[in-house]
Amino acid sequence: MQRAAVLVRRGCCPRAAGTPAVLPSMNPQVRAVEYAVRGPIVLKAGEIELELQRGIKKPFTEVIRANIGDAQAMGQQPITFLRQVMALCTYPNLLDSPSFPEDAKKRARRILQACGGNSLGSYSASQGVNCIREDVAAYITRRDGGVPADPDNIYLTTGASDGISTILKILVSGGGKSRTGVMIPIPQYPLYSAVISELDAIQVNYYLDEENCWALNVNELRRAIQEAKDHCDPKVLCIINPGNPTGQVQSRKCIEDVIHFAWEEKLFLLADEVYQDNVYSPDCRFHSFKKVLYEMGPEYSSNVELASFHSTSKGYMGECGYRGGYMEVINLHPEIKGQLVKLLSVRLCPPVSGQAAMDIVVNPPAPGEESFEQFHREKESVLGNLATKAKLTEDLFNEVPGIHCNPLQGAMYAFPRIFIPTKAVEAAQAHKMAPDMFYCMKLLEETGICVVPGSGFGQREGTYHFRMTILPPVEKLKTVLQKVKDFHIKFLEKYA
Amino acid sequence: MQRAAVLVRRGCCPRAAGTPAVLPSMNPQVRAVEYAVRGPIVLKAGEIELELQRGIKKPFTEVIRANIGDAQAMGQQPITFLRQVMALCTYPNLLDSPSFPEDAKKRARRILQACGGNSLGSYSASQGVNCIREDVAAYITRRDGGVPADPDNIYLTTGASDGISTILKILVSGGGKSRTGVMIPIPQYPLYSAVISELDAIQVNYYLDEENCWALNVNELRRAIQEAKDHCDPKVLCIINPGNPTGQVQSRKCIEDVIHFAWEEKLFLLADEVYQDNVYSPDCRFHSFKKVLYEMGPEYSSNVELASFHSTSKGYMGECGYRGGYMEVINLHPEIKGQLVKLLSVRLCPPVSGQAAMDIVVNPPAPGEESFEQFHREKESVLGNLATKAKLTEDLFNEVPGIHCNPLQGAMYAFPRIFIPTKAVEAAQAHKMAPDMFYCMKLLEETGICVVPGSGFGQREGTYHFRMTILPPVEKLKTVLQKVKDFHIKFLEKYA
Repeated sequence: MQRAAVLVRRGCCPRAAGTPAVLPSMNPQVRAVEYAVRGPIVLKAGEIELELQRGIKKPFTEVIRANIGDAQAMGQQPITFLRQVMALCTYPNLLDSPSFPEDAKKRARRILQACGGNSLGSYSASQGVNCIREDVAAYITRRDGGVPADPDNIYLTTGASDGISTILKILVSGGGKSRTGVMIPIPQYPLYSAVISELDAIQVNYYLDEENCWALNVNELRRAIQEAKDHCDPKVLCIINPGNPTGQVQSRKCIEDVIHFAWEEKLFLLADEVYQDNVYSPDCRFHSFKKVLYEMGPEYSSNVELASFHSTSKGYMGECGYRGGYMEVINLHPEIKGQLVKLLSVRLCPPVSGQAAMDIVVNPPAPGEESFEQFHREKESVLGNLATKAKLTEDLFNEVPGIHCNPLQGAMYAFPRIFIPTKAVEAAQAHKMAPDMFYCMKLLEETGICVVPGSGFGQREGTYHFRMTILPPVEKLKTVLQKVKDFHIKFLEKYA
Repeated sequence: MQRAAVLVRRGCCPRAAGTPAVLPSMNPQVRAVEYAVRGPIVLKAGEIELELQRGIKKPFTEVIRANIGDAQAMGQQPITFLRQVMALCTYPNLLDSPSFPEDAKKRARRILQACGGNSLGSYSASQGVNCIREDVAAYITRRDGGVPADPDNIYLTTGASDGISTILKILVSGGGKSRTGVMIPIPQYPLYSAVISELDAIQVNYYLDEENCWALNVNELRRAIQEAKDHCDPKVLCIINPGNPTGQVQSRKCIEDVIHFAWEEKLFLLADEVYQDNVYSPDCRFHSFKKVLYEMGPEYSSNVELASFHSTSKGYMGECGYRGGYMEVINLHPEIKGQLVKLLSVRLCPPVSGQAAMDIVVNPPAPGEESFEQFHREKESVLGNLATKAKLTEDLFNEVPGIHCNPLQGAMYAFPRIFIPTKAVEAAQAHKMAPDMFYCMKLLEETGICVVPGSGFGQREGTYHFRMTILPPVEKLKTVLQKVKDFHIKFLEKYA
């Protein structure tokens, strides 16, 4: 390059420092995205952690990240069998080691034989490793009492989030009044609103009934869709069951009603069922949308389009970092399935290690196998603890004046309603913050407890909530709840 | 649910079988996506494999998938040290095992200490694990002879594809004539055209100079941008160096010219440098865009926006399945960096196992460390073999009448130009196929060799090519090349 030419040209093409080309014109849909679970409160938590490390004194010694469902970060131990199989797949020399059980070796060999070059380091088919999709289908069939599942309808994904955003990407189209409307619960998990923003689709809110344990009421779906039809084309209905952040477990009757509504309105059903193993209330049971769909008869099972999602991240395995997941699609037209595979192939494949983890989630040791007893003990311990903590959290929150908490029937969060006094609402407004963001920031600054304001999930106007995970170990969770209680009482006094 | 109500309503809402709601109105941008590397030819290869399994006789006994850069699927063994560290991270009980070297244990401990709950099963920060980003920055600094890299500018990704599509998602905006134009080389790696379709951006082609070893000529960039300005707002310039599918390695002079052009035109530079370790020609060296940018002085290094991509999938490690990668951004405005982290946080984090693999790619054993010798031997063996195969492929192709192959200076593909006789072009048209697709289909059906037609990457009108990887082991590659030669000669005779 000739420097002289550059210097001459510099004059004709000035670029003022601090005004890079991209800033004024970045993608407005990306700018519109919000994702509270890792939003400003979590950034603040990170800053406080750094201050603590630097020795700055605080009224607490550690930040407790109860903002995200990240079990192992809270000290939950991985399920031994899963990690044994993964280690064997990673470093197959270990297949000769006497310190691994034979059933784990058998699994590892089965997975490796299905991988290119017998290695986790090869790309898989874009839809996922064949034998893992077969194991997923077998799991669904068992789970649903024999309702058949076809491996051809299973797509392995990079966590459930990837599956949900991919299927939404396929479904969204149109402009103006024919732009696709996507119905989501309020409160929702903010992945939905974020992807809807990214895709420039139309978010159609339906409200869960807080007075009725966050139940889904089909009349509310009818209200929402009628209003939406004025300005968009509602085509997709998203359901989160068990609920996130709300923790309700839908009744079979309610699922039937929703399916009938989807059939009637020709909606594509998205069933986010990643908490299917996390049901704690003795009166509740998980019913999959797939099973209920089939039990409603061929008019439904042959016509209603459904995608259901599961993940390695939740359940009792809690393997968030592996980013494993699957989606099952029902009644998706073969041409669309072709389009889906094409779209997935652009990103080549989901992480093969995450696919292997998904295999163990859907196909854990069976009774009689060498590893079964240890596996069973570990599983029951995790789920038993979660059930204890769900009840404990509900009970303790409901002891606090100005806090009301619905039963945590499932999932891994409390979403209590909090009373925020008028003076605190005014103080929040002075700080240009939502009142519950103001509350959560104060909670973080005074106690080190990081929770997510309800406004990040959506809530009825004038009500305030926060989402807190129940993942800390029991004794720590008790301390956390006591601290929230003390904070809340002081907060009410301060802004009385 | 009341069955009676359903039956009554069924009459009012008929949904004809085979016409699901989604089909007529799926996302047109998704429909427009094309991705040849896993396109129709690869589907056909899968069908043929199934036929072979079912015992159907063919003129060959196996399909050789030379369509995709998937080293381990072609029998390349993983680098031992990488897999040892990964196994230790996966199943930390192994940290007590005497059969793992101490340096691998030290690495595993360092990575685990930086993970939530000391586990690969926790989510990481959305930008990636801190200490891994530090290792990436240290690697870049070493690679670029001391030009500093800031861990804050490093984002770990789910393979390079994820990074490239994420940054493009941020950059694309506008409508009509102000829609963002993205300049890409022709031939290109079809991730680019696919993402541009998905985002409804405008693809602006610049042609590489086949007569000149696929060099990039800045005059061609000028021609392309001038024409594009009539109908869009060109804002991004994508470079693939070493080239995919074309295998050229850019000279330092050429990189300077490109950077100056980007500075002049205020373009955001996307440097796809995933083949930075794959340079074979003794006359060529890899120069990173970052290093050249800094050496050109502050007017450039403080102003030109650059994102550079690397991956665990290529190089000599070939760990495609782990989906590890990183991107380094330069001169990205702090507000845009905030927007980027927000966007990444919606998908929570890249797979933590892929992040760990990336750590070993950028930080392999150093001289003096216990594992260095074995590592060095393995690395040299892979790269030495690739260099041998690059030369062999070039030489053998150029022996065949009607095939011309530029030198494979880098990457892992040959992209020979093939002469297709008029009669074959007519036969292809009769089958509604591109002539080179017709050629590749015949090659697959007659020899079992799966390569990708040049039309999947783009090529000058009237020229025909295919892309073939050089990953099969040497002896197998020789057989493959001989078979292609025989096929080509017969093809020329048949359609003479």
